[in-house]
Amino acid sequence: MYKLRSCKQMHSHSDRITIYDQENFQGKRLEFTSACQNIMECGVNNICSLKVECGVWAGYEHSSFCGQQFVLERGEYPHWESWSGSNAYHIERMMSFRPICSANHKESKMVLFEKENFIGRQWEINDDYPSLQAMGWGNNEIGSMQVQSGAWVCYQFPGYRGYQYIMECDRHGGEYKHYREWGSHAQSFQVQSLRRIQQ
Amino acid sequence: MYKLRSCKQMHSHSDRITIYDQENFQGKRLEFTSACQNIMECGVNNICSLKVECGVWAGYEHSSFCGQQFVLERGEYPHWESWSGSNAYHIERMMSFRPICSANHKESKMVLFEKENFIGRQWEINDDYPSLQAMGWGNNEIGSMQVQSGAWVCYQFPGYRGYQYIMECDRHGGEYKHYREWGSHAQSFQVQSLRRIQQ
Repeated sequence: MYKLRSCKQMHSHSDRITIYDQENFQGKRLEFTSACQNIMECGVNNICSLKVECGVWAGYEHSSFCGQQFVLERGEYPHWESWSGSNAYHIERMMSFRPICSANHKESKMVLFEKENFIGRQWEINDDYPSLQAMGWGNNEIGSMQVQSGAWVCYQFPGYRGYQYIMECDRHGGEYKHYREWGSHAQSFQVQSLRRIQQ
Repeated sequence: MYKLRSCKQMHSHSDRITIYDQENFQGKRLEFTSACQNIMECGVNNICSLKVECGVWAGYEHSSFCGQQFVLERGEYPHWESWSGSNAYHIERMMSFRPICSANHKESKMVLFEKENFIGRQWEINDDYPSLQAMGWGNNEIGSMQVQSGAWVCYQFPGYRGYQYIMECDRHGGEYKHYREWGSHAQSFQVQSLRRIQQ
């Protein structure tokens, strides 16, 4: 049986992402090992395809890490649809990105709260949930979240679909007490699936 | 801490799905507890929103369980984008669906093969993989698969994005020896993430 080892186990090198200004890995090509706040400052108007070679990254619709969020795990993304998932608004744009340093697949822990400001029923999780309702969560919303370790991605719809909201233990002190803190694209408390982010 | 129980633990009732012929759970409403081969025979032209109340279902673009596949776990799906994910062709149509009887989240097991016809390197898995490459799989393709227990969903792109291919232990004898057996929408061996289907 084939023995697998992750990128970080095999190599001592750090995070690495390659972006292209055309679809299907064509056009101008740039390689990064750390955050890029505005791809236009590197002479590229937009990212149209990309490869994550090591680590896990967060991509953003706008510069300075704003707008729609896209979790980018290792692999090949030939066009915008390949990282966007299904979204309520379709703007083919990714302008900034950064590594998700706290991602720790095995040690991730988070507490979900029924209501905003960490009140109501609570539930501690350390696993992936393609359907929160299938596991007994009462409705299609989460009021607030406390990330105790690792990094997570929450989704509007079951099966890891719809808007992506990246939650990290080392940002906001791991506290997300209202959907307004999930990102500028969040317009409601709706979360129906969530999972740990894999390093 | 809130104690969660799944739908199947709480109730003895069987699979249940409610479909609507308008978006946002509007219009004509029909409830099913077993497969529907052609929604038009029930007097509905198309499914525009749905709620999975119990069990896990496979939805299909065309009648008779053909065309693009959509895994439907428990939760609310207000429009086509909420179940389709990001797809290479955007046809807002779901005409048939059926329960995925073999889904067994805890007991799922599958063997991946590097090449078609169950040859080349192999890897036995019983967990979810948002990035196969992050776990050491050498490229962005899987040649063939043997599902030994449970049901799985494979995706073109990392992070559970792109085309969905549903693989079950009790169909095809669990054997998927070429991408032509994954479904009529499969056009290549490309698979970059996969996961167990949750009951």
